[in-house]
Amino acid sequence: MFERIAIVGCGLIGGSLALAIRERWPEAVVIAIDSAPIVEAAVRMSAAAAVGTDLTAADGSDLIVLAAPVRQNIEMLRRMGERVHGGALVTDVGSTKREVVDAAAQLPDRLRFVGGHPLAGAAAGGLDAARADLFRDRPWILTPTPNSAAADVQRLCALVSALGAKPTTMDAGRHDHLMAYISHLPQLVVSAMMEVVGEEAGPSGLGLAGSGLRDTTRLASSPANTWRDVTATNAEALSEAIDKLRDALGILKADLAQGNELERVFSAARDWKRVLDRSDA
Amino acid sequence: MFERIAIVGCGLIGGSLALAIRERWPEAVVIAIDSAPIVEAAVRMSAAAAVGTDLTAADGSDLIVLAAPVRQNIEMLRRMGERVHGGALVTDVGSTKREVVDAAAQLPDRLRFVGGHPLAGAAAGGLDAARADLFRDRPWILTPTPNSAAADVQRLCALVSALGAKPTTMDAGRHDHLMAYISHLPQLVVSAMMEVVGEEAGPSGLGLAGSGLRDTTRLASSPANTWRDVTATNAEALSEAIDKLRDALGILKADLAQGNELERVFSAARDWKRVLDRSDA
Repeated sequence: MFERIAIVGCGLIGGSLALAIRERWPEAVVIAIDSAPIVEAAVRMSAAAAVGTDLTAADGSDLIVLAAPVRQNIEMLRRMGERVHGGALVTDVGSTKREVVDAAAQLPDRLRFVGGHPLAGAAAGGLDAARADLFRDRPWILTPTPNSAAADVQRLCALVSALGAKPTTMDAGRHDHLMAYISHLPQLVVSAMMEVVGEEAGPSGLGLAGSGLRDTTRLASSPANTWRDVTATNAEALSEAIDKLRDALGILKADLAQGNELERVFSAARDWKRVLDRSDA
Repeated sequence: MFERIAIVGCGLIGGSLALAIRERWPEAVVIAIDSAPIVEAAVRMSAAAAVGTDLTAADGSDLIVLAAPVRQNIEMLRRMGERVHGGALVTDVGSTKREVVDAAAQLPDRLRFVGGHPLAGAAAGGLDAARADLFRDRPWILTPTPNSAAADVQRLCALVSALGAKPTTMDAGRHDHLMAYISHLPQLVVSAMMEVVGEEAGPSGLGLAGSGLRDTTRLASSPANTWRDVTATNAEALSEAIDKLRDALGILKADLAQGNELERVFSAARDWKRVLDRSDA
């Protein structure tokens, strides 16, 4: 498969990837690149055989995986041509893809890039929460460009399949548009709604809420730092998604004013919810 | 307590109330009023000692509980002066209160009204799902008006306390405003978002969704008929709530366009979510 794999950024995803690769291919050399305390912890967890605290440690790898927050990955792509001298296949595991793919277009030819996004997560982040089976049965989207070599895409598909994930390919723009709706919009709407509801109801009013509000607002606990890069690098698609929801709410409001019974939106929502619940990603 | 209690409408709430009263006060006469098949089922479940299919069967009761959908309760309040000849304390268990309290203001003096709203529910509705402990440890809001007799409010508080519920009183307008935010807005937003997300993502895109979207959209399965009366009788407060959320989403969109990092909304949402999760209604 790959003989020498550098993983740059050892949080939940990077750490889990290191553990999964070492479990599947014990003979592969995994190089963990992050700050000193993190890479020391990675060695203690047997997640890496070699370590580095700088991108130069990736030189000589045949696969380089960027697993830092999205904007750090973009920054690394900009410097990679100077820091890494050999040839390598480069991928990333970030939650948005268009800006990453754009940055990767500037790489020298010897560094071939195919973006990726494993749809896997856990309640807790960080290397401590990493586990080798994090990607099992989860989708892993790859976003080749017209310049990507088919052989590179196939090698990454084979890699993630061997780790138990379900690879699928799509255009980076389509990926970001889709994520704006199935992931980023729900997060922002829940955060905005929790703030509005809290301010109007106050603590005593919230005490009267039932399970509907409690379940609906689970995502309101998300920390801002997880979302900072995601929203910043998908602002355009997310703005469009916000507009569509605002329009839908405007229609609902007009229906209410006219005494319509909202059958249509409830019926459409139930139908789509059934599709969602039957899908098994 | 009360000797003869008519419960008009034997769904989940009315049926559970009948069972709870008979369990607590076996000597009380509970009269179930609904369509023939429903009241027959209520008798089979030992939820009622007497039955009727018309409001006139409530005559002679010292407590009348309206437990049909809100607009049917309002209609019954309009006809009650003609149909019920004795004196009685009248209450309801509907999810909105202002229009109900307004309709009750037309009752003759012998029919004294105090509105109520038990905040209890279950995944399944209908008499089949009724159970005597449905109200245990759940809030039960009573909405007296300046014309309500303190003794009537106290008797209802004592009744619902004896059934295990936690009574609290508030003005009908405050109730409806509060419910618009903690209950009705989340339902409409989830339904609208599920439709928007489904239409943009399609079945294959929804297949890539993670637990965030799945949990957030649980309420999208709600049937329209449960919400028809609620939204129709709280349209004004709900429209205001929709406006506030649309404004909040507009601010988020402007923040995105300006490259702001959304720290403020995430932080406020987390704080309110913590308040919500620590409250134990």
